[in-house]
Amino acid sequence: MVPLAEIAAFLRREFPQTKCVVEAVGDGTATVSHEVTVGELRPGGTVSGPVLMAVADVALYVAILGKLGVIPLTVTTSFTINFLRKPAADRAVVGVCTLLKVGRSLAVGEVALYSKGSEEMVAHAVGTYSIPPGVVPP
Amino acid sequence: MVPLAEIAAFLRREFPQTKCVVEAVGDGTATVSHEVTVGELRPGGTVSGPVLMAVADVALYVAILGKLGVIPLTVTTSFTINFLRKPAADRAVVGVCTLLKVGRSLAVGEVALYSKGSEEMVAHAVGTYSIPPGVVPP
Amino acid sequence: MVPLAEIAAFLRREFPQTKCVVEAVGDGTATVSHEVTVGELRPGGTVSGPVLMAVADVALYVAILGKLGVIPLTVTTSFTINFLRKPAADRAVVGVCTLLKVGRSLAVGEVALYSKGSEEMVAHAVGTYSIPPGVVPP
Amino acid sequence: MVPLAEIAAFLRREFPQTKCVVEAVGDGTATVSHEVTVGELRPGGTVSGPVLMAVADVALYVAILGKLGVIPLTVTTSFTINFLRKPAADRAVVGVCTLLKVGRSLAVGEVALYSKGSEEMVAHAVGTYSIPPGVVPP
Repeated sequence: MVPLAEIAAFLRREFPQTKCVVEAVGDGTATVSHEVTVGELRPGGTVSGPVLMAVADVALYVAILGKLGVIPLTVTTSFTINFLRKPAADRAVVGVCTLLKVGRSLAVGEVALYSKGSEEMVAHAVGTYSIPPGVVPP
Repeated sequence: MVPLAEIAAFLRREFPQTKCVVEAVGDGTATVSHEVTVGELRPGGTVSGPVLMAVADVALYVAILGKLGVIPLTVTTSFTINFLRKPAADRAVVGVCTLLKVGRSLAVGEVALYSKGSEEMVAHAVGTYSIPPGVVPP
Repeated sequence: MVPLAEIAAFLRREFPQTKCVVEAVGDGTATVSHEVTVGELRPGGTVSGPVLMAVADVALYVAILGKLGVIPLTVTTSFTINFLRKPAADRAVVGVCTLLKVGRSLAVGEVALYSKGSEEMVAHAVGTYSIPPGVVPP
Repeated sequence: MVPLAEIAAFLRREFPQTKCVVEAVGDGTATVSHEVTVGELRPGGTVSGPVLMAVADVALYVAILGKLGVIPLTVTTSFTINFLRKPAADRAVVGVCTLLKVGRSLAVGEVALYSKGSEEMVAHAVGTYSIPPGVVPP
């Protein structure tokens, strides 16, 4: 298992634009959270869709790092998200990723997104990352 | 047809977090561009995936506004993106949307994403927006 | 709860082309199985992709019927599938659906697909069905 | 360019379950058609969703064969479809594929689906095929 602190440090270097905090990393799982700021809201208090997409993308990335180690060059190849409910404007967005497959060239995972403290899923994403040649999955 | 300036003003109010500029709006089409900043790059000079997702989402939103008028409450329900090539780090990202359907409750469109000045698609997205009840498509 | 036998009978009428057997229906969940025939294999013993898509589509449909009752006119609006592992050629395909949302106009669910008797997911799908106006979700 | 007759013969061997006819293959494009039979309809005269999915999958496969040659082992890795309009019950379904990318390990294409003789798209799909190692794209 790759230590959480090592992943968090790598994430800050590789993905400097994310404000996501790595909450937990397990064997094929990861939880990240993202504090919502006023600039990320749309009128009516909805969290902007692209903010949710970004949190899901990072959760997937972190889960893959936790499985394969801190390898650079890993990039998203496809990503699908379904928006289910209006997220709370005043709570962090939490992304919980479960990897479905880690192969030689592709890793696939799903991400459930919540408003912190709520059990109702606000969005659900599935994404695929391309793994650079030569990385040996465990 | 809804004038471009009206859409651009509405976009700034409804979607204040986007830096996208509305370049053109046609009958079921829209082109937006987004200047890439250093903070949106990942090491190696790749534009962050969520940045591309956000530009595609806005292009789709603008095309719908151009078709239906500046209606609030329209929200993304599903969104799929495939990443095809590495975008240029030093060029704007351009999103070109073509609506595939504008029905009573859903609008569906596809978006081709390019690095400005290049004809090679860097990503391709398809998304669905939910239209609030009572809006009459033309 | 809608009885399984009622759903199975309705499925045979509404979806006569499916050979899927309804194994279980719960509150927002459904399990269906599909016996693989030689005509559904590709050389090398892979179950054809469209067969897996069809099983996932039916599993989602059955879960919605279990939640809303046997309403006709419900149709798929979007569907995404990721293929993860090669299914066994000599085992039934099993689809297990969990609904993520049942709203007024859309129902969204995810489906895990397995070869019968195995715990390794062979594919994962997410789909959306449009619900006709006037149906009241419970 | 791979001759159409060679692709059609290969398709019958590799994908014996499809009834699709290869209508045309170009440089990164393909058109296939599928005669709809009564067994593929749902009550009300709608062509079953999985039938449309299968036609789109074959159109994508044929376009890749046209580009790379008749290579076996190529399999779908991800597939997304949006259903737009009700297809005609008494017309063939036509799938027109345009490849968006043919890389070393993945090929991505989009498919527009029509009822034969109509210009209104009934569904739109995007899919990814995995290319076996060692195949050199042109």
